[in-house]
Amino acid sequence: MEFSELIKTATVEDALLLRPGLPALRGTLCITSHHLLLSCRPRGDPELWLLIRSVDAVEKRVSGSSGTITLRCKDLRVLQLQIPGAERCLNIASSIEALSSVDSVMMMFPFFYRPPSLRLEQGWHQFPLERFFQRISSQTSQWRLSTVNSDFSACPSYPPAVIVPAAVGDDTVARAARFRHGGRFPVLSYFHAKTGTALLRSSQPLTGHQRRRCREDEKLLGTLLDEGERGFIIDTRSEQAAKQARMSGGGTEPKSCYPQWRRLHRALERGRPLQESFTRLAEACSDPAPSTERWLSRLESSRWLSHVKAALSTACLAAQCLDRERSAVLVHGAEGTDTTLLVTALAQLILDPSCRSLSGFQGLLEREWIQAGHPFQLRCARSAAGHGRARQEAPLFLLFLDCVWQLSRQFPLALEFGEKLLLVLFDNAYASACGTFLCNCERERSLCKVRERTHSLWAWLDQPEERHKYLNPLYSHNPLVIWPSVEPQSIQLWQGLFLRWVRPSQHLDEAWEQIRRLVQGSSSCSEESSGERLGQPPPEPAEGTTEGTESGR
Amino acid sequence: MEFSELIKTATVEDALLLRPGLPALRGTLCITSHHLLLSCRPRGDPELWLLIRSVDAVEKRVSGSSGTITLRCKDLRVLQLQIPGAERCLNIASSIEALSSVDSVMMMFPFFYRPPSLRLEQGWHQFPLERFFQRISSQTSQWRLSTVNSDFSACPSYPPAVIVPAAVGDDTVARAARFRHGGRFPVLSYFHAKTGTALLRSSQPLTGHQRRRCREDEKLLGTLLDEGERGFIIDTRSEQAAKQARMSGGGTEPKSCYPQWRRLHRALERGRPLQESFTRLAEACSDPAPSTERWLSRLESSRWLSHVKAALSTACLAAQCLDRERSAVLVHGAEGTDTTLLVTALAQLILDPSCRSLSGFQGLLEREWIQAGHPFQLRCARSAAGHGRARQEAPLFLLFLDCVWQLSRQFPLALEFGEKLLLVLFDNAYASACGTFLCNCERERSLCKVRERTHSLWAWLDQPEERHKYLNPLYSHNPLVIWPSVEPQSIQLWQGLFLRWVRPSQHLDEAWEQIRRLVQGSSSCSEESSGERLGQPPPEPAEGTTEGTESGR
Repeated sequence: MEFSELIKTATVEDALLLRPGLPALRGTLCITSHHLLLSCRPRGDPELWLLIRSVDAVEKRVSGSSGTITLRCKDLRVLQLQIPGAERCLNIASSIEALSSVDSVMMMFPFFYRPPSLRLEQGWHQFPLERFFQRISSQTSQWRLSTVNSDFSACPSYPPAVIVPAAVGDDTVARAARFRHGGRFPVLSYFHAKTGTALLRSSQPLTGHQRRRCREDEKLLGTLLDEGERGFIIDTRSEQAAKQARMSGGGTEPKSCYPQWRRLHRALERGRPLQESFTRLAEACSDPAPSTERWLSRLESSRWLSHVKAALSTACLAAQCLDRERSAVLVHGAEGTDTTLLVTALAQLILDPSCRSLSGFQGLLEREWIQAGHPFQLRCARSAAGHGRARQEAPLFLLFLDCVWQLSRQFPLALEFGEKLLLVLFDNAYASACGTFLCNCERERSLCKVRERTHSLWAWLDQPEERHKYLNPLYSHNPLVIWPSVEPQSIQLWQGLFLRWVRPSQHLDEAWEQIRRLVQGSSSCSEESSGERLGQPPPEPAEGTTEGTESGR
Repeated sequence: MEFSELIKTATVEDALLLRPGLPALRGTLCITSHHLLLSCRPRGDPELWLLIRSVDAVEKRVSGSSGTITLRCKDLRVLQLQIPGAERCLNIASSIEALSSVDSVMMMFPFFYRPPSLRLEQGWHQFPLERFFQRISSQTSQWRLSTVNSDFSACPSYPPAVIVPAAVGDDTVARAARFRHGGRFPVLSYFHAKTGTALLRSSQPLTGHQRRRCREDEKLLGTLLDEGERGFIIDTRSEQAAKQARMSGGGTEPKSCYPQWRRLHRALERGRPLQESFTRLAEACSDPAPSTERWLSRLESSRWLSHVKAALSTACLAAQCLDRERSAVLVHGAEGTDTTLLVTALAQLILDPSCRSLSGFQGLLEREWIQAGHPFQLRCARSAAGHGRARQEAPLFLLFLDCVWQLSRQFPLALEFGEKLLLVLFDNAYASACGTFLCNCERERSLCKVRERTHSLWAWLDQPEERHKYLNPLYSHNPLVIWPSVEPQSIQLWQGLFLRWVRPSQHLDEAWEQIRRLVQGSSSCSEESSGERLGQPPPEPAEGTTEGTESGR
């Protein structure tokens, strides 16, 4: 396939662009393999530079000799193009549609993007599991790094290296894998050093209607508990759904075979219902002039805030089992790639201060979402406007980001990063110039040579001129567990995301800018007082700036 | 009446106090004329020191040899007392009930409160109308200060001095007063210097079913408009309600008699429906474990956010007429003491940066709420839990504070004061140690000698150790009009007030404290750099601190 075959009309003069909250622009529209450009002046920089991949849905309307194209973007922005010439309009629309729907990974923009400021290999090896394991092995000898999956044969959606109980060999692990959906055998997600307990994740066991069992799986989980100890299995499906799964070969761990494990069911929505919730919420948010009653009733019927509450509650439950009950926890739903990761990643943010720094959070995303095999390509193929075509789409990752936002709102000092980072992650998960969120698992990434042939988003974000934008100027390391309030009254709509393009945030941005300036001024002040770097411009805020400020005062 | 007659049991040993989010306290309960005290140690300071006036409703439940009293406070806090001895419990409950219901103003605590740090006269003469008029008279000669009401004969609910059009004499004004409900003739509320237009307020005209007219009233309003000019009358009732008011002697300005004035109807709820809305919202907020759907549905059915939206929208309309249409505006509903003041006060905050400083805001409250005759004593006699008894109660002032909070959220830099001030104002409007919110109008305050015999809340708040608590550390003078977004999606529940006692705000408070420290550090830094006050502790943040910081960097 050549991109040029998909582009029926490459250039249109005198196109008009309408964007919410911004002045209209008239100029020359230009379609390239990956971008939609609009330039108002010849030879000037384009005023619009839109990655076509970020278009979620294209609507066209032709009347007389001109037409209007509405582009619903994956980041929830809505753009309108008025194009002279009905045929040209239809050509432009179908070109955008075709280019935005290319589903061959290696044809996507990250494989063509070559910014001069970055080298391809940068950022890809920032968070090796080996380093994560090092920390754990300094705290306990219960775990080992296994290469049982080095050729992706045990579990195609797991990364080559995983952490398993030291007491079981790779043979046992490989057999346990055959008893788990998609081969996702129980692996270590997080070790809670404070209580010496472990958080594991897997997929459902393949008990089926014959009630099969697997000694190796039972042994793998059994070695984790001493005599008399109890562990918790948090199943992210309702009890009924877990039972029904037996019909299609799945199921759940029977008490009789896993006597020391107690099962708790916490039904979390995923798949179609979650995608529909997202769509309904996005529609409600773009309703131009609802009454307050209609707005609240649409907000309620979207059920999005219920999903946020349920995810946070279940993560708190897992965290409580580890921190207060001092018990091991295994989390799984059916496939172990969606709500499972939502719960384990959130639980770690709640429990572990090292996940709340900027690089710690990036490491968490690498471990618990990207390398753990959340199928980003399937789940984020379309966003809120892509209904109808949706098969495998579901905004699990957005739900995670929303929960993180709720944490950041309830604990304004606890996270080193701010809302802007969460927005950038959302945008890049759905359409990106970088390769970080491409493909569905490490195996696919390795086949496509994503690490060799695309840039890492982490490298991009780590550039000093980028990095400072995403920092929370109020951050101050909090060594404690942060227990969020999960009462419905405490869960708020994430306006910064859902109303980003319809409500200007200029004044809130100014406030953050003001706080940022204060922190900078304050840190430069403490340096001046101590006689260093006198007269130099204030430095970029760096990790621990606010702490430095306090101790410097 | 003697207080001692109302106190049936003055002391109970071994009472247990339960408060949300705080540890239980056991100690000696003591009732004085104005306070409920609980002391855990003999001769120690009491741990609870509750103004009995702030109790909104008392519920008692006796079982066996002990009883439980639930105190619902006007600030929405709920306290529980467990009292040994059924009879003592009933006695305590009825004592609290009687003391909290004393309705003679001069028996209230402000007449007995004598803090050593303040003098009685302090703060009472901080905001004379004369000073407000001075500013106006430097900008236009269209207005004059009238003493037509110096003996409260023209309008019992107006203050002695009012601002009226310079072109009409006091005779005309006095006759116009007889044509307005309660004598509330049109007076100047605010002069918008930028466009040279005036905001007026009054009550409804007494047209009645005979369609009476009053030349003097017509003349008073007529002098404001040159030939060809147009003014707007914003009636805060629906058109139908305004027409129906003729039956009871009221009505609205007919086009034929006020040809240059165009009437706009914007129905704002007041009275019983508003009070019920408040009660329903407070009940929903204290629901201990609703589902997200139930919470959102109760929030919706309380209609509180609709009232916030409607108030802000109407204020924006008034502000737009003044600022964009360059037209004079008269606001009134029926009595001109409730929604009228809500709209005129909010419009000024939106338009005029001088109302957004701490002292400017206090001055606005003095002029547009207290001296303008909002009947605080009637409206704030009971709060959300006082249903059933409510006759004249309505949370108009709370609705105003909520709208101000919405402004502060949408424009985080624009107001010099923060949420804490709004909370203190809410608390003091319903129960206070100071006299500022006592009585219903200046005439009553003068009869009770409130200014001579009680302390002013403004004096209390102006003490340096108090004042700094209420400042917004991010404040930076914004000379522009601040147009709020009034879409339902932009209106949020004021959690700081409605969930104050059920959701701990510790982490948010810490964030503000952090910002405050940064601002202080930053201002002390700029002083150090300039060589002044070296080595002195950081000063209290004062007006313009943040600006000073910027220019100092």
